[in-house]
Amino acid sequence: MAKYMCMDTLRFLLFDVHQAESLMRYTRFTSFDRSSMDMLLIAAKDWADQDYFPYFKEMDETPAKFEGGKVRTHPILKKIFSDAGENGWLGMYFDSEDGGQQLPQLMQSALNHILEAANNHIPGYLGLTAGAAHLIATFGSEQLKKTYIPPMLAGKWGGTMALTEPQAGSSLSDIVTRAIPRNDGTFEIVGQKIFISAGDHEAVDNIIHLTLARIEGAPAGTKGISLFVVPKLRIDEAGNLTPNDVVAVNDFQKMGQRGYSTVHLVYGEQRQCVGYLVGEANHGLQYMFQLMNGARIDVGMTAASIATAAYYASLQYASERPQGRRIMNSGKKDVSENQTLIKEHPDVRRMLLNQKCIVEGSLSLILECARLVDEEHSSDPENARQCHLLLELLTPMAKTFPAEMGRQSVDMGLQVLGGYGFCMDFPLQQYLRDIRIMAIYEGTTGIQSLDLLSRKIPLEGGEALRLLQARMQETIHQVSESVFLRPYSSKLLQAMDHVQKALTHLMGFAMKGDYQMFLADATIFMDLLGRVVVGWQWLKITHAAEKQASGQSYNAAFIVGKQKAMAFYFTYELPKTAACLETILSGEGLTIPVGEDDWLQ
Amino acid sequence: MAKYMCMDTLRFLLFDVHQAESLMRYTRFTSFDRSSMDMLLIAAKDWADQDYFPYFKEMDETPAKFEGGKVRTHPILKKIFSDAGENGWLGMYFDSEDGGQQLPQLMQSALNHILEAANNHIPGYLGLTAGAAHLIATFGSEQLKKTYIPPMLAGKWGGTMALTEPQAGSSLSDIVTRAIPRNDGTFEIVGQKIFISAGDHEAVDNIIHLTLARIEGAPAGTKGISLFVVPKLRIDEAGNLTPNDVVAVNDFQKMGQRGYSTVHLVYGEQRQCVGYLVGEANHGLQYMFQLMNGARIDVGMTAASIATAAYYASLQYASERPQGRRIMNSGKKDVSENQTLIKEHPDVRRMLLNQKCIVEGSLSLILECARLVDEEHSSDPENARQCHLLLELLTPMAKTFPAEMGRQSVDMGLQVLGGYGFCMDFPLQQYLRDIRIMAIYEGTTGIQSLDLLSRKIPLEGGEALRLLQARMQETIHQVSESVFLRPYSSKLLQAMDHVQKALTHLMGFAMKGDYQMFLADATIFMDLLGRVVVGWQWLKITHAAEKQASGQSYNAAFIVGKQKAMAFYFTYELPKTAACLETILSGEGLTIPVGEDDWLQ
Repeated sequence: MAKYMCMDTLRFLLFDVHQAESLMRYTRFTSFDRSSMDMLLIAAKDWADQDYFPYFKEMDETPAKFEGGKVRTHPILKKIFSDAGENGWLGMYFDSEDGGQQLPQLMQSALNHILEAANNHIPGYLGLTAGAAHLIATFGSEQLKKTYIPPMLAGKWGGTMALTEPQAGSSLSDIVTRAIPRNDGTFEIVGQKIFISAGDHEAVDNIIHLTLARIEGAPAGTKGISLFVVPKLRIDEAGNLTPNDVVAVNDFQKMGQRGYSTVHLVYGEQRQCVGYLVGEANHGLQYMFQLMNGARIDVGMTAASIATAAYYASLQYASERPQGRRIMNSGKKDVSENQTLIKEHPDVRRMLLNQKCIVEGSLSLILECARLVDEEHSSDPENARQCHLLLELLTPMAKTFPAEMGRQSVDMGLQVLGGYGFCMDFPLQQYLRDIRIMAIYEGTTGIQSLDLLSRKIPLEGGEALRLLQARMQETIHQVSESVFLRPYSSKLLQAMDHVQKALTHLMGFAMKGDYQMFLADATIFMDLLGRVVVGWQWLKITHAAEKQASGQSYNAAFIVGKQKAMAFYFTYELPKTAACLETILSGEGLTIPVGEDDWLQ
Repeated sequence: MAKYMCMDTLRFLLFDVHQAESLMRYTRFTSFDRSSMDMLLIAAKDWADQDYFPYFKEMDETPAKFEGGKVRTHPILKKIFSDAGENGWLGMYFDSEDGGQQLPQLMQSALNHILEAANNHIPGYLGLTAGAAHLIATFGSEQLKKTYIPPMLAGKWGGTMALTEPQAGSSLSDIVTRAIPRNDGTFEIVGQKIFISAGDHEAVDNIIHLTLARIEGAPAGTKGISLFVVPKLRIDEAGNLTPNDVVAVNDFQKMGQRGYSTVHLVYGEQRQCVGYLVGEANHGLQYMFQLMNGARIDVGMTAASIATAAYYASLQYASERPQGRRIMNSGKKDVSENQTLIKEHPDVRRMLLNQKCIVEGSLSLILECARLVDEEHSSDPENARQCHLLLELLTPMAKTFPAEMGRQSVDMGLQVLGGYGFCMDFPLQQYLRDIRIMAIYEGTTGIQSLDLLSRKIPLEGGEALRLLQARMQETIHQVSESVFLRPYSSKLLQAMDHVQKALTHLMGFAMKGDYQMFLADATIFMDLLGRVVVGWQWLKITHAAEKQASGQSYNAAFIVGKQKAMAFYFTYELPKTAACLETILSGEGLTIPVGEDDWLQ
């Protein structure tokens, strides 16, 4: 079987860079140890090898499709749900009282990585099911929990998050789906939702839509949005499952992730759709953000995992395909020589190293975030508070860097294969198509960037950013004894200075009340800060690798690989922060509309 | 009908920026004038509207396909060939004695732009036919010319270029297709070619493969390659068309350009395949470069044209789709207001402006090259010589900048549409899939970059680059009176200095004989110089626009659009040259293989 991810790198990131074992000191996680975590990783890899990876191409070729009022999906999906339920893969991170195993998010993310790299068309079905159940577990009544969580975690019922509406798109304040109070405490739901992932399929008996809607008379905007459980089949008075008048009326055929169904739902066309309020009225968006914040990190992980699989596919090709000859120091080629492998050509090797540094840097950033989630269970409340702040700051980057840079990484992977990369017989084109949505799911890059600059940077008077800077300084301090790493520390400091200069400039606009200018280049700022944060991850990775160098866990080549990829990142990717800064400093508000704009033609 | 290109911009680039009318002073072009050129543009647009654009989606959905030994293509293709022949679209740029009209390449490129933007799956069939016929016209015997050119220009026979072989890929020195002399002066051809565009289809009666092969006993490497005409059907002794034992055995299904057939050809399986030598033996690669150099510029034009169509598709969406509200200077949004059009959001506008500056800058660079081709007909031989040198230098960039940056541009266009951009119902995903091959066709970006740095920069002791720098200085001098343009001139000078610094550094390696280090970052150098050259084009464009500002040809909004796009390019794209320089200066040879590389895991 082709290599689609690297277990050694994953274990190294988990246990050496992000020190998963140290989490075990928190009460919540005491039931795990290194050996049980290792076993879980192996079990996930076995499952992925057996039921995910072999169907990757097929799920693209026979996409999920709405036909005759139903959504046809790949038959393996039914087995996946059933095995997931039976073997306890769903909701592992839940509280034990909700049927979970209190698995650290750090481990959950690692498991996701394996499954997403093997076949990114599948894990979303499970992730949304667990995420929707978790929302009910956190904010729902006992009745809701009792009714929905067990069949969802058993893999018998699926779950979705239903936010987007045709007229509103990303603008959630414009949601108009109506919730009309009925006299039994439930609500009648009327409206439409689009782009609902896993929104209909036949692999489960029922689908539970966690739906945002507006109770009649609620305030305008996001403050009037409530969260409802709206099942495809509701339990009637007799205890039977009966259709609940929420129906997939069509699907969206997509350029990628074609095995992952995406539907258009209509609620209450017969005025028979019942919804059950989750938590308090008008708090829906706030609740939904629990799921959304997690989903953003998951999207980052999906992107990083697709890019990982693409990296190994292109590395394999480059390691097997002979073509051309190496350029000798004379500048000549000797055509009488045998052809060389294409990985010996510096430009091919450049693309491979570029992929490696993006892929592993992204993975490390996401695991950093997952670990911060776990730190909320720290016994030290101040630590928990700080980690929460840091997580808030890092989340938009952990989604965006893998989505944007991961796409470039896959694109380089395709280029490594030359003409074959463009052909349907090779997987690179599928990875490229699949990864494209990651910059759009769960808030586009533009929206993540506004979130970063307008909400996360100013958080607690800038404390989140100061905490981040302190952590980076701490890493720089830790690596100061490594002669090899010291020059890269200096480069990171310089890049951090770019961030500071950019922010000083932008804050000037905010202080003057010019929020348009403050935010116009938010996406450029995202690019700048994201690159710095991943540079920090690479220092951490290489530091951990050097500490290992004297140990026995990984061979010398493994360590050298991390050093080379780090050096590559600092030489080829980090310098772009200077260009971001120059753009921000010289921004003239070119993108802010003034008066007529018929010049945009 | 949706707008897929801008006739005003095209005319402006042709007649104002690149001064097409001034070509008419050359004897070769005296039969054209502004009015006949305008009519040609309109005729091409009518043809594109009628027979190209309406089939763009269909050709993707029902791809060219090898079935039952034949390649099925879209039925419109037969009409296209027939109309092309009847209306004289094929070989317009040929000498009149070869059946052409001596159309300037500048105009030919403009016509290509219209057709490629309308439907990039079609023009390749015609372009290869004309290109193959042109190769025969230039290097072939009278007998070959008489036999092949008339039916090809009549659109009855198609043409291809057959270079790539399974074992050789980009490494043409490893071509092994054999040409065995027969006793009548012809050759028996035996071998295989892959990735042959338009290599088989039923829209024409015959297909003429311009094929590279090695005459038995020829020297190894590229010096032993000869060029042959190998028709699908040859004319037998009785004057009838008879199968020539060159057969499509399969095709390549691709992620994009799916309407454009790509086949695997087998020559001489029955030992019955006859080839006709073009020109002298062992000069094949040199001859083929005539077609290849033109094809590289054409690929650049295809990329720029796809990106153009994507730009207008995303602009239309952004101009019609309401969503969210503008951020007020207070930093708040007023949800009681109506939603705004998404083009009013700075981040959406950023992506639109970014597309516009890449698209129009690319077009201008390609037209610059096309004009240089025409200057070879200059009455001043020194001018012709200089223009030829400049063309050699600019060709790899005119191919690569549109292919690489155009892909990013289309990607931004897709992002403008959010979730809809990922859906098959909207054209952006198709443009993104179609454009992906442009960085691979006719020599990958890596190969173009090696060509630029190792062959074109050193040409005539660096004269080509000096000529380019002189032309840039001339433009900077011309715009020096514009208060608006002066600051951008300074930025261009600074970026030119980055090129100089990079070259000084790289040449140091070349002088020491360290060709590996000299060439390892060729692709980064390509990125650097390409950005500078397009910056130069933007100064030329804006200078021409400002001159127009007092005239009547274009309205004020049109002029403002050029100014804004230029300013955007200099603010958001040109600063990246500094990062390229830093990468080149700090390059440590990370991509040069040394010893074992099992660390690349």
